[in-house]
Amino acid sequence: MSSLASGPHGPDTLRPLLDTVLDALRAGAEARGGPLPAGGPGPVAARVRAALGEVLPPHGDATALHTLVRALAEGAADPADPLCAAHLHCPPLAVAAAADLAASVLNPSLDSWDQAPAASALEALVTEALAAEVYPQAAARTGTQARAQPRTQAGADPDADPHGRTPTTGGTPTGTTAPSPPGTERPGGSDALVTTGGTESNQLALLLARELHGGGVRLVCGANAHHSLHRAAWLLGLPEPVTVPAPAGTMDPVALDEALTRLPGPRGSLLVAATAGTTDAGLVDPLPGIADLCRAHGARLHIDAAYGGGLLFSDRHRARLTGLDRAHTVTLDLHKLGWQPVAAGLLAVRDRDELAVLDHRADYLNADDDTEAGLPDLLGRSLRTTRRPDILKIAVTLRTLGRSGLGALVDQVCAHADEFARLVRRHPRFELHDRPTLSTVLFRPAGATDDTVAAVRRTLLTEGRAVLGRARLDDRLWLKVTLLNPHTGPGDLAALLDLVEGHTPR
Amino acid sequence: MSSLASGPHGPDTLRPLLDTVLDALRAGAEARGGPLPAGGPGPVAARVRAALGEVLPPHGDATALHTLVRALAEGAADPADPLCAAHLHCPPLAVAAAADLAASVLNPSLDSWDQAPAASALEALVTEALAAEVYPQAAARTGTQARAQPRTQAGADPDADPHGRTPTTGGTPTGTTAPSPPGTERPGGSDALVTTGGTESNQLALLLARELHGGGVRLVCGANAHHSLHRAAWLLGLPEPVTVPAPAGTMDPVALDEALTRLPGPRGSLLVAATAGTTDAGLVDPLPGIADLCRAHGARLHIDAAYGGGLLFSDRHRARLTGLDRAHTVTLDLHKLGWQPVAAGLLAVRDRDELAVLDHRADYLNADDDTEAGLPDLLGRSLRTTRRPDILKIAVTLRTLGRSGLGALVDQVCAHADEFARLVRRHPRFELHDRPTLSTVLFRPAGATDDTVAAVRRTLLTEGRAVLGRARLDDRLWLKVTLLNPHTGPGDLAALLDLVEGHTPR
Repeated sequence: MSSLASGPHGPDTLRPLLDTVLDALRAGAEARGGPLPAGGPGPVAARVRAALGEVLPPHGDATALHTLVRALAEGAADPADPLCAAHLHCPPLAVAAAADLAASVLNPSLDSWDQAPAASALEALVTEALAAEVYPQAAARTGTQARAQPRTQAGADPDADPHGRTPTTGGTPTGTTAPSPPGTERPGGSDALVTTGGTESNQLALLLARELHGGGVRLVCGANAHHSLHRAAWLLGLPEPVTVPAPAGTMDPVALDEALTRLPGPRGSLLVAATAGTTDAGLVDPLPGIADLCRAHGARLHIDAAYGGGLLFSDRHRARLTGLDRAHTVTLDLHKLGWQPVAAGLLAVRDRDELAVLDHRADYLNADDDTEAGLPDLLGRSLRTTRRPDILKIAVTLRTLGRSGLGALVDQVCAHADEFARLVRRHPRFELHDRPTLSTVLFRPAGATDDTVAAVRRTLLTEGRAVLGRARLDDRLWLKVTLLNPHTGPGDLAALLDLVEGHTPR
Repeated sequence: MSSLASGPHGPDTLRPLLDTVLDALRAGAEARGGPLPAGGPGPVAARVRAALGEVLPPHGDATALHTLVRALAEGAADPADPLCAAHLHCPPLAVAAAADLAASVLNPSLDSWDQAPAASALEALVTEALAAEVYPQAAARTGTQARAQPRTQAGADPDADPHGRTPTTGGTPTGTTAPSPPGTERPGGSDALVTTGGTESNQLALLLARELHGGGVRLVCGANAHHSLHRAAWLLGLPEPVTVPAPAGTMDPVALDEALTRLPGPRGSLLVAATAGTTDAGLVDPLPGIADLCRAHGARLHIDAAYGGGLLFSDRHRARLTGLDRAHTVTLDLHKLGWQPVAAGLLAVRDRDELAVLDHRADYLNADDDTEAGLPDLLGRSLRTTRRPDILKIAVTLRTLGRSGLGALVDQVCAHADEFARLVRRHPRFELHDRPTLSTVLFRPAGATDDTVAAVRRTLLTEGRAVLGRARLDDRLWLKVTLLNPHTGPGDLAALLDLVEGHTPR
């Protein structure tokens, strides 16, 4: 029971345990028999408590793996069930989940080269390539192999001359630029950091702004922005953010212009955060117009593309991200439109030199003489210390599916959303909020009160029938479906609508 | 290639992919043939680059899973190799790695109940039980089943009356106490939050202090404290920390008393961070004395037990943590003395009511009417939003091994350290720093310069022979072995010493 996952006997030890896991997953799913367990929080917790028993018993129990995995599966909201469609909570690809096992087994930690020789090299290569997807021009300038992609504006980069920086110092960051990990020795150009998700990416974007422009930097974001931006400002001790109205679900450029005109402070003291793929409605802010305003006012621009960033893989939908490369920083999150197990977040930065403000020294991990002798200095690539190589599953997915495979998945879920919107529009008892932009559709029973909408969602949840989301827009509460399952069929979508109809009081 | 990990076909799809992973792990380990790859950073990066090819090719390649997992294994520093003994980088248990697969497959996200019904219930139960290991008395007060454990001090809890709080508000935290997840509805008592590691736990400990006592709260920590404490103070915008000398590797209580006397500010404006298990030498600060000083000066106490916390599982070694339960917050990290794949961090809090300052509202995840209707509000349990259930592998490990099984592993690695120290002491060409407290041993070739010590370590690394750490203590550089592999044998320890001897210039 205390056998190790790696070493010479690792694979032989793991094989029967993995069989146990697969059997328990199957048994749990059969016992659940639907997209989520029935009964609501109380009964689910009681079943888990019964399966768990004493958390740390005096002596071990070799059946615990089966028992607990089965309980987790029985009590899961399985994102691979077409009726589990509430959140940006994707069903992971089997190949990504399998790759992730190797990370657990070898347990490389990305805080020093001598804990992760290959993993750190892999991360350097893959993050650089993903950054080049966001910033093809910055990549082209430095020779990074990037896909030829039409620029959004002809001629010179309109944002190529960033405003003057007033770096702050504090704590222990050294403020000097450390050598890059192997494979990324090029000066300048774009890069990306791996994060635990969009929330940490947004937090890092604000931290970079604070360190480059001072602690008074003020976040300006739409009313449609993700809550994590506000939380990051609070965490980092920044001033209260300024909220720009988003009456139609996207940031109003006129209101943004007014806010940027009205707000005091030197150039660079404002950080505008736009959204490419809102959580509530899957909408994309008018990025080129916002980038123009930021340039005119000297504001820094961050774009939270945690959801919409996946459109980069799709030839059909990529144009919806026009203007993305004009941001200083971009949040990506491949556990949304990337079909990864959590965590798979990224923060792309147009100018990798800006990352120097994250440099940090800990003698046992990156002593000067080791760095000078050529051992890569990895501490500045994250605020975490010990860090799992989430890049492995990402790399395996990118290579296994290729651009065409990933693009097809994106196209499929966007097509599902169009199809579901058509079904809603044709249905006399439902109201559609709007044509979908990404893979989110808002709808509601015609004439229902907000309380009824909320109750329908909770009833479906409690009965274990479907997992739907909710969103308030136009001062009304809507049901939300976020379609991230590429294998959902037209029949599933019709069944989902029937289910909601059947649970709506006439 | 775009098959899903879960759903009805998930297990059948996964089975051959998992076989591929196991085969690739074996092939990679064979190609490596030692604790880490030979050649140093350049050649390792070149091999990874060759294996990877184009990061996002136009079309997919079904062999990518094998190719990349093999490359990761070939280029790994495998913590299950007895000669990989530099860092707090444990070899994971097979059963924990297998359990972690289920988390990847089902992809529950712990930011809302409807993404993680069973996972959130499991987390609530396991974190409460782990907190009760740290705080047996707080658990006993509220009826949590906790192991009977001798109190460190007889009579009433000397730290039971915390000083007055001056909560701050800012950003979007609501400042109200939300209902607890199912299974934890008791008021008061201890609790624990799951984190990405000791670094995030320390960050949260500082954040709690800031929110409870104001933004001027000052960190006071030993020169032996983990670098992440300084980095957290910088991140959170706190004043520059005060460093207390630690001439013998542990915080000097006399110097701490002086610092607490000298520093201005109201009661509660100082946060002392002590360490139970230093990264450099595995030493434990004099916790009871430090707790007494904190009480006398009205300072808040955090203990970073990321390393030493695992001694809680050992009847033989638990007494070294006497005083741990007098801290307001305690960092634990089960990817050290807990044999978990990364990530497996925790922050234990003595008074769960303090966690209310982390409360946060996002209408799509925890709308008031949903919370009132009984859906658990999970957002205040982390600064992350999307969050993987790392608690599953922890729960499976605790149940599979039990207290006796985990305690035996702790005892084994501590015994290895004693044995290695004996070998060093008996060896004429080596100097031992001191008897080990946990599982870390510092030693150096007798009479060598610091440059030689550093060079020996780098040579062993570059040749792929051994992964040793380094630490500066008593103004000299030492080689460090951190023994976390319970299956290391006496012959391995002798071989490690021989290897160092053979690589030391006479």
